[in-house]
Amino acid sequence: MNKAAQALPNFRSDNVAPVSPEIMRAIEEANRGPAAAYGDDDYSKLLNQRFSTLFETEVTVFPVSTGTAANALSLATCVRPYGAIYCHKEAHIDTAEGGATEAFTGGAKLLTLPGRHFRIEPPILREAVTGAAWGVRNRAQPDAVSITQASEYGTVYPLAEIAEIGEIARDKNLSLHMDGARFANGLVRLGCSPADMTWRAGVDILSFGATKNGTMSADAIVVFDQDLVEPLSYRLRRAGQTASKMRYASAQLLAYIEDRLHLRLAAKANAVAAHLGAGLAALPDVQLVAPVEANLIFAKLPALAINRLAANGLQFARRGDEVIRFVARFDSTEQEADEVIALVRRAVAGSTTVGVTTSATSRQK
Amino acid sequence: MNKAAQALPNFRSDNVAPVSPEIMRAIEEANRGPAAAYGDDDYSKLLNQRFSTLFETEVTVFPVSTGTAANALSLATCVRPYGAIYCHKEAHIDTAEGGATEAFTGGAKLLTLPGRHFRIEPPILREAVTGAAWGVRNRAQPDAVSITQASEYGTVYPLAEIAEIGEIARDKNLSLHMDGARFANGLVRLGCSPADMTWRAGVDILSFGATKNGTMSADAIVVFDQDLVEPLSYRLRRAGQTASKMRYASAQLLAYIEDRLHLRLAAKANAVAAHLGAGLAALPDVQLVAPVEANLIFAKLPALAINRLAANGLQFARRGDEVIRFVARFDSTEQEADEVIALVRRAVAGSTTVGVTTSATSRQK
Amino acid sequence: MNKAAQALPNFRSDNVAPVSPEIMRAIEEANRGPAAAYGDDDYSKLLNQRFSTLFETEVTVFPVSTGTAANALSLATCVRPYGAIYCHKEAHIDTAEGGATEAFTGGAKLLTLPGRHFRIEPPILREAVTGAAWGVRNRAQPDAVSITQASEYGTVYPLAEIAEIGEIARDKNLSLHMDGARFANGLVRLGCSPADMTWRAGVDILSFGATKNGTMSADAIVVFDQDLVEPLSYRLRRAGQTASKMRYASAQLLAYIEDRLHLRLAAKANAVAAHLGAGLAALPDVQLVAPVEANLIFAKLPALAINRLAANGLQFARRGDEVIRFVARFDSTEQEADEVIALVRRAVAGSTTVGVTTSATSRQK
Amino acid sequence: MNKAAQALPNFRSDNVAPVSPEIMRAIEEANRGPAAAYGDDDYSKLLNQRFSTLFETEVTVFPVSTGTAANALSLATCVRPYGAIYCHKEAHIDTAEGGATEAFTGGAKLLTLPGRHFRIEPPILREAVTGAAWGVRNRAQPDAVSITQASEYGTVYPLAEIAEIGEIARDKNLSLHMDGARFANGLVRLGCSPADMTWRAGVDILSFGATKNGTMSADAIVVFDQDLVEPLSYRLRRAGQTASKMRYASAQLLAYIEDRLHLRLAAKANAVAAHLGAGLAALPDVQLVAPVEANLIFAKLPALAINRLAANGLQFARRGDEVIRFVARFDSTEQEADEVIALVRRAVAGSTTVGVTTSATSRQK
Repeated sequence: MNKAAQALPNFRSDNVAPVSPEIMRAIEEANRGPAAAYGDDDYSKLLNQRFSTLFETEVTVFPVSTGTAANALSLATCVRPYGAIYCHKEAHIDTAEGGATEAFTGGAKLLTLPGRHFRIEPPILREAVTGAAWGVRNRAQPDAVSITQASEYGTVYPLAEIAEIGEIARDKNLSLHMDGARFANGLVRLGCSPADMTWRAGVDILSFGATKNGTMSADAIVVFDQDLVEPLSYRLRRAGQTASKMRYASAQLLAYIEDRLHLRLAAKANAVAAHLGAGLAALPDVQLVAPVEANLIFAKLPALAINRLAANGLQFARRGDEVIRFVARFDSTEQEADEVIALVRRAVAGSTTVGVTTSATSRQK
Repeated sequence: MNKAAQALPNFRSDNVAPVSPEIMRAIEEANRGPAAAYGDDDYSKLLNQRFSTLFETEVTVFPVSTGTAANALSLATCVRPYGAIYCHKEAHIDTAEGGATEAFTGGAKLLTLPGRHFRIEPPILREAVTGAAWGVRNRAQPDAVSITQASEYGTVYPLAEIAEIGEIARDKNLSLHMDGARFANGLVRLGCSPADMTWRAGVDILSFGATKNGTMSADAIVVFDQDLVEPLSYRLRRAGQTASKMRYASAQLLAYIEDRLHLRLAAKANAVAAHLGAGLAALPDVQLVAPVEANLIFAKLPALAINRLAANGLQFARRGDEVIRFVARFDSTEQEADEVIALVRRAVAGSTTVGVTTSATSRQK
Repeated sequence: MNKAAQALPNFRSDNVAPVSPEIMRAIEEANRGPAAAYGDDDYSKLLNQRFSTLFETEVTVFPVSTGTAANALSLATCVRPYGAIYCHKEAHIDTAEGGATEAFTGGAKLLTLPGRHFRIEPPILREAVTGAAWGVRNRAQPDAVSITQASEYGTVYPLAEIAEIGEIARDKNLSLHMDGARFANGLVRLGCSPADMTWRAGVDILSFGATKNGTMSADAIVVFDQDLVEPLSYRLRRAGQTASKMRYASAQLLAYIEDRLHLRLAAKANAVAAHLGAGLAALPDVQLVAPVEANLIFAKLPALAINRLAANGLQFARRGDEVIRFVARFDSTEQEADEVIALVRRAVAGSTTVGVTTSATSRQK
Repeated sequence: MNKAAQALPNFRSDNVAPVSPEIMRAIEEANRGPAAAYGDDDYSKLLNQRFSTLFETEVTVFPVSTGTAANALSLATCVRPYGAIYCHKEAHIDTAEGGATEAFTGGAKLLTLPGRHFRIEPPILREAVTGAAWGVRNRAQPDAVSITQASEYGTVYPLAEIAEIGEIARDKNLSLHMDGARFANGLVRLGCSPADMTWRAGVDILSFGATKNGTMSADAIVVFDQDLVEPLSYRLRRAGQTASKMRYASAQLLAYIEDRLHLRLAAKANAVAAHLGAGLAALPDVQLVAPVEANLIFAKLPALAINRLAANGLQFARRGDEVIRFVARFDSTEQEADEVIALVRRAVAGSTTVGVTTSATSRQK
């Protein structure tokens, strides 16, 4: 990577974020002498208590090292091998986790649904569930619904929509899983309590993302349906997801929710994204693909302009020829957003000239 | 836990260790601004290079969050679903990983072998391999051998023994996996090079343990057989073992091998263990179950004495009624060892009196 | 089932067929005294030879008890757990086998494609394959293509189309699987040799269906790519699909291909289907959903007429509210077809009157 | 195979048996015109009723094509992926089914136990169950016990022993599975009712073997614990074990239990085995390895004698260098047994002379 490129603001992904200073301090504080392993340490013992307070109900929390593990193991605990999971057709569990859910469930099926703004629409879900081949032995049996909050495209389910999905699920005895890779970003958008956005709306199990918002490979599964706790605990161990030195992940997660740190970090990311989104939307030849409700911006612009931006060394992700993604982080700034807006303005203006070809940035990252 | 108990030295496990100061500094240094995700950062890019230097051959390194993941995913890459893996009957992969290897291989069989000092004996392996039901369709087909260095009981395979096992494996086209949860402790004992203890002796893939010896949930898989690299890379992602913010694990692993830090840390643990082992062996009514060659001590003593030690709040692990395990760490001291020796002396001396009953400390930890 | 209903012709499925007299005789002849088990009997030993003659190349044949086992185990042998299989969106492997392919592959993904006349269209496949996320670690990696000949809707791939699909597959190193549940019906339609319809067009492995066309739960996997033979043989045994008394299945399969019996039986079914299809197509308010090229007829008619037919006790399968399926068998007759045509004519004519509601006949059968 | 060899009696396995004439007639009678598929035919509908009468309780019966499928799918329905199954160390599920149980359970562990006469001894089971690592997250959790009646060595559990095992299982909430590959042979030996040998003694699910005793690849799973019925029905379909033309298997199973046919056939086999066992035991240098209680005889004799018998073309199975197995079938005769006794007498008498080397008959068959 050349110097010039490094100097440009990086809106490629929230996975490129560093660890927030508050989290770093928590890690350092946890690093004092020996501590019991596999969750018997003082930090891990506090997790359930503090998260239960945060969620205003009794929850059980399991730290995991990645969001893929959180999603796939949560779903494996809810779904029979011959079961099926409804999700949006852009859901990360179907498009970007290497088949982890199929692997950990023993081959369950993901049934993908269309839906405006990259969210499952309750009427579409209801129709699918109603028309499912219930009891037919050669057809996958619906066992769960998975929604992503905030969604993979940065849109956010309103509470009423989650509640409606929760009701459909409950009616048919389906588990409701929430992929909360950007949970705090969704919370900030809605300004509601974690309880309102989850179990009060029918969520049974939550992938509680924290890594994208300031921790160091420390995500968690938060379980509301206590029947899932025991089987999940075995599946985690068997999946190599039970850390021996769990105190370090637990200390991070405690710090992450203390004094609303998670909300403060996410609020920063959302604000920069809103600023960047508004600035881009105001440019000629640029359209937003989805409303900017969290920290992601998807913009449609001419392919030539995209190539030009890439050639300049700007970091972003592509989605096809004419759509790019920017992601704001807790450590992003409005100045950086302004810089990107200026770059895009120039690239679009010049995009009638021949652009340079660049290798596509892969979808994987 | 009461105050008195906390004040006692803790020889329960190397999993209770903190992170070494050098590793902590590396984490802090890595925490500077954004960095590419999923292994495209500067630290991760250095990993293969530095480990190739360390191992004196081209290797590929994959950071993982636990030793269970390292073992099970390494083996899943070597073994067909209808395959079999030879291991010692006390191997962690069979006795203490919750069936992770069976899960990730799709149901392969672990064929356990007896062996003195908790090591596979080459003649026993040779006989098993020779007598295997090769080509018989209703019998698991041997695909791999897994050895643990240092072993689960703190014994260490001499180089000639590994080489002999490697030769048996190669003759039958079996992969040789080394569970190196305590790899550095084995190296220190033998005083040999990492190359001699692995690929030069026939090892194809290594679970490179670092967490027990000073890192923070950062272990790795080191691949010598380059044919395994591609399939392993997919399996890791699918297992939720590819960290988005990989730089933090990579920075730790780089620091861990820099200036022989891993050897210095392990040497400390081994030395304290040797001191503790010698002290215990000299006590009446105490016998060592296995020679102390790494950082583990297994001692046989009267059940009453064990109960008394537990009642005192000493931290250790039990193996049946009359055997206990002590584990020395890089941060253990000879003074702590002396304290334990004194406690055991008193407990044994008093064990003809009625001991107190304590709940067994579980094998899990 | 009432008498009246039983007296009506049954076009519900070719799974309701009896065993043809020739096959029955073969079973009886095989039933003489003891015979070696698990395929070492004289019948089974002949299988590879006779099928190799039929297919004009060296093939290996494995009898299995169901088409689901044939499909799922064939594919499991071609596809890595993190692999993907392209198939038509109406493919039986995706819609009607209870997730068998996901189960036996260890969680591979089925990537479904649209396509006119219920066949994969080569340009659509080429585009999908070209645009696949090759090498991207969090995306399923294409490993196979599966086509159904004759298709689930009774259409038949022309040879040139299979060859084109075969070429696309070969270019990308994908295995080509053919679900030949109605293989003989396809052969009869094309009037070509089995070789032309399979390996000469690029097919690597074939689910050779026979049960729907006259055998008694005796299907087979025919392997052209000899690299698949050994792994498949283990997978079959492990799946409980290696019959101890294999002679009975083998004797049936030998009789099935002797003197072109399979073609004679399929020709009868196809002819009755053509007759029935033509008769239905000539009725007012009835349209064929797909051309009748094998032994299946899909007809669109008013929902009221369908309900009336069901109320009369006619046996057929439903596909949604206005589409029904008829299946002709080797033991169907033109008279029966005429009877159905007359019934449908009357039902359609009367369908402006209120029909009776019947429970939908399930898709499972 | 030369003429002479063919002329010799065949005691190699009960898998070499033909189909009994009564079963053959039932198949022919079932072959009349079309019949509903996937178990909705008249024969299949009768199965549950007739078997419920036979077992004196409500049971659900699922025909399957092999005993391996019966065992592995029964156990997969009782056992969690992180579960464990206790079985004898000679149990077929562990030694001779290609890992089917591991595959279908998703990687559960088989915990093998020693036991005299190749049966699990209740005290050994009780100790194992009591000492199990209940609740420990990194250890397989006991979910089932599997016993084989008659055992793989032709011994038969007395009712009291089964009941004791059933009680141990019930106490710990374990499912009790019976591998009844030779169920009728066990029944004949005990002279008890099927109910006494199964659910009254605590059996929850039974692999009801029939193929070895006269059917044509038609075994069944008989479910006593009705909670297992629904999940099993899905697992069967997904495993490719739900026959479309189920009537043929069902007709066989109905005929098999009609008028106690299964008992008459097994009685014949047991009687010939008893005769053969007694004759062999009376020979010098020949010892029975286990009491002959069903239709299997295991005899120890000099290796030279075994080689001589093999060279003569006698069909039997080997177990190591000095043990051979003979299996009597419903179609075996006392004359054949006498012939074998005479051959063995001669082989033993001549075994001090140099024998010929023969290729070992494989364990697979």
